[in-house]
Amino acid sequence: MNVRGRPMRTIWLASDGRTVEIIDQTRLPHEVVIVGLVRLDDAARAISTMQVRGAPLIGATAAYGVALAMAEDPSDAGLVAAISKLAATRPTAVNLRWALAEMKHALQGVPEDRRPAAALARADEIAEADVAINRAIGDHGVNLIAEAWRRKDGVGRVDVLTHCNAGWLAAVDWGTALAPIYRAHEDGIPIHVWVDETRPRNQGAGLTAWELGEHGVAHTVIVDNAAGHVMREGLVDLCIVGTDRTTAGGDVANKIGTYTKALAARDNNIPFYVALPSPTIDWEIECGATIPIERRDSREVTHVEGWTDDGRRIAVRLTPNNSPAVNYGFDVTPARLVTGLITERGVCPASRAGLLKLFPDHR
Amino acid sequence: MNVRGRPMRTIWLASDGRTVEIIDQTRLPHEVVIVGLVRLDDAARAISTMQVRGAPLIGATAAYGVALAMAEDPSDAGLVAAISKLAATRPTAVNLRWALAEMKHALQGVPEDRRPAAALARADEIAEADVAINRAIGDHGVNLIAEAWRRKDGVGRVDVLTHCNAGWLAAVDWGTALAPIYRAHEDGIPIHVWVDETRPRNQGAGLTAWELGEHGVAHTVIVDNAAGHVMREGLVDLCIVGTDRTTAGGDVANKIGTYTKALAARDNNIPFYVALPSPTIDWEIECGATIPIERRDSREVTHVEGWTDDGRRIAVRLTPNNSPAVNYGFDVTPARLVTGLITERGVCPASRAGLLKLFPDHR
Repeated sequence: MNVRGRPMRTIWLASDGRTVEIIDQTRLPHEVVIVGLVRLDDAARAISTMQVRGAPLIGATAAYGVALAMAEDPSDAGLVAAISKLAATRPTAVNLRWALAEMKHALQGVPEDRRPAAALARADEIAEADVAINRAIGDHGVNLIAEAWRRKDGVGRVDVLTHCNAGWLAAVDWGTALAPIYRAHEDGIPIHVWVDETRPRNQGAGLTAWELGEHGVAHTVIVDNAAGHVMREGLVDLCIVGTDRTTAGGDVANKIGTYTKALAARDNNIPFYVALPSPTIDWEIECGATIPIERRDSREVTHVEGWTDDGRRIAVRLTPNNSPAVNYGFDVTPARLVTGLITERGVCPASRAGLLKLFPDHR
Repeated sequence: MNVRGRPMRTIWLASDGRTVEIIDQTRLPHEVVIVGLVRLDDAARAISTMQVRGAPLIGATAAYGVALAMAEDPSDAGLVAAISKLAATRPTAVNLRWALAEMKHALQGVPEDRRPAAALARADEIAEADVAINRAIGDHGVNLIAEAWRRKDGVGRVDVLTHCNAGWLAAVDWGTALAPIYRAHEDGIPIHVWVDETRPRNQGAGLTAWELGEHGVAHTVIVDNAAGHVMREGLVDLCIVGTDRTTAGGDVANKIGTYTKALAARDNNIPFYVALPSPTIDWEIECGATIPIERRDSREVTHVEGWTDDGRRIAVRLTPNNSPAVNYGFDVTPARLVTGLITERGVCPASRAGLLKLFPDHR
């Protein structure tokens, strides 16, 4: 998607053919800083310090990290050490482990002298595959927006509400929840996005608002508390959010607060869609109640990070020193509140039957 | 309620019999600063700069402000000027105008030389009446908590979720939503409060957490997004919130985000109560849809205020410079989502019939 009028991705191979470049997302939205990853350590640090975040992007960065490691030490020991180091950066990330397994599979049995090139080729493939999946999510999801536009007889605009950041910054390009929005924008549908700020980490206020603004998509930031009100006021045509894990039964684990947004959508008869690449479907579990919910550092609740007038990013305290806080990272939205799942193979009901129709190989 | 182990109110007459003292709430939760109001201008500034806030407390401060004015200039012109100045401090506050009308009524026809004492006496009465109303809300509301405690067979604790600050800091003492909680605490019921931080102004994180902590009531701060999750996890026995305006039909206008909390309570079969002094009932309107919703400065959304490590209160920016934001101050929770209204005369269904049973004079 565009940044300052020029297309960008979140990760790419630099013109020297060796350095991997990323956007340092910890500096967004106030600075666009490109960071070059030259060594394995650089890639590991980029993931652990959240210069890159979002499941698909973490996976792609890990794949490139293995490629960087192979340029340093293409031995079997080097491969094992690189995978082990990268796997430890974000212990719960599913895509990270998947990408590392892919790289291991691609490099086992390849002679050492051909490993650097083979690793780079496979990392490129992983990144391109992510772009293709998300573009396909956009191709299918845009129909829902186009339908909403037809229902309005071409008057006004289509208003979409989203939560957190499931945009191109979380992927290599396009994003999941935002892919249909970018497609609608390119198709000339007048579209406006309500962006929940998404406390505690404010990925909506900081990242979603930034990427929509850079690409020229109209949007308005609201506090999470206001999402119900804008729906009740008739200002939302549909909701589209991403997901970290979808059960085979259609329950959706996503950023904390998604559940109450889905309740508000249901109470106001607003369609609530969840966009997902099929690798985030957990075919092993039926019901979301069994998904473990990560509890993160309570400092994210007691404090908030933002920018001072002179451009420094600092954390300020919100709560009394002695007040405890608890920080649930995700919640589960039950399938009954989800109008449909937008996947790379099409849109389906949030149910096992719906998913199996698109992915019959999991029957 | 207690601060550092000693009972305090939000406003009181100092031992010199002339100075009105308040807690400067803009310095909470990190400093307890007592400010003396000596002149009319001091009282007006305390309201307009939000050193005092909360409808009942604004009313009491305005009443004392008239008393301070009468000590300076007890003439009719002085009375008119004082009322006019105080009325302009917070244009939309209902209690402010009510308190000023009460003061005018009490002082008209009183000789100038007796006005200072008469004004002080009436201001004291207004403050005491607020304490009595809120204590009565606590007396009635505590039964709901005691019932929840009985249902749990005395095992564990009663978990109450609240939104924003409807505690003693918003009133003269006790508070509305928190009055039943303080009563339960005094009655020895083990109670724990989930405190929504309540973006954008974070009155939950900054004020509710502070006053509960100072009084020794167990509590945990969560982001607004987490309220649905804790309810879904079975961690909440009942919700109690305050209100800025209740319609004759039982719809409730309260801090933005109250509506989605009520939806989550309903989805999880958790009772959702609204505590209110009867002056906040608007008998003129039946339906909440006609309540105008205040749109406040978008800077409260694009920025957040907090404390630096060295104790300075500053605002940090959360959003890109070019991203618009909108700031709805309140939302309306429809009566169908409200289990009951806790008033100074008892608990009733959120309906005209329910309210009229307690307040038959409005039939």
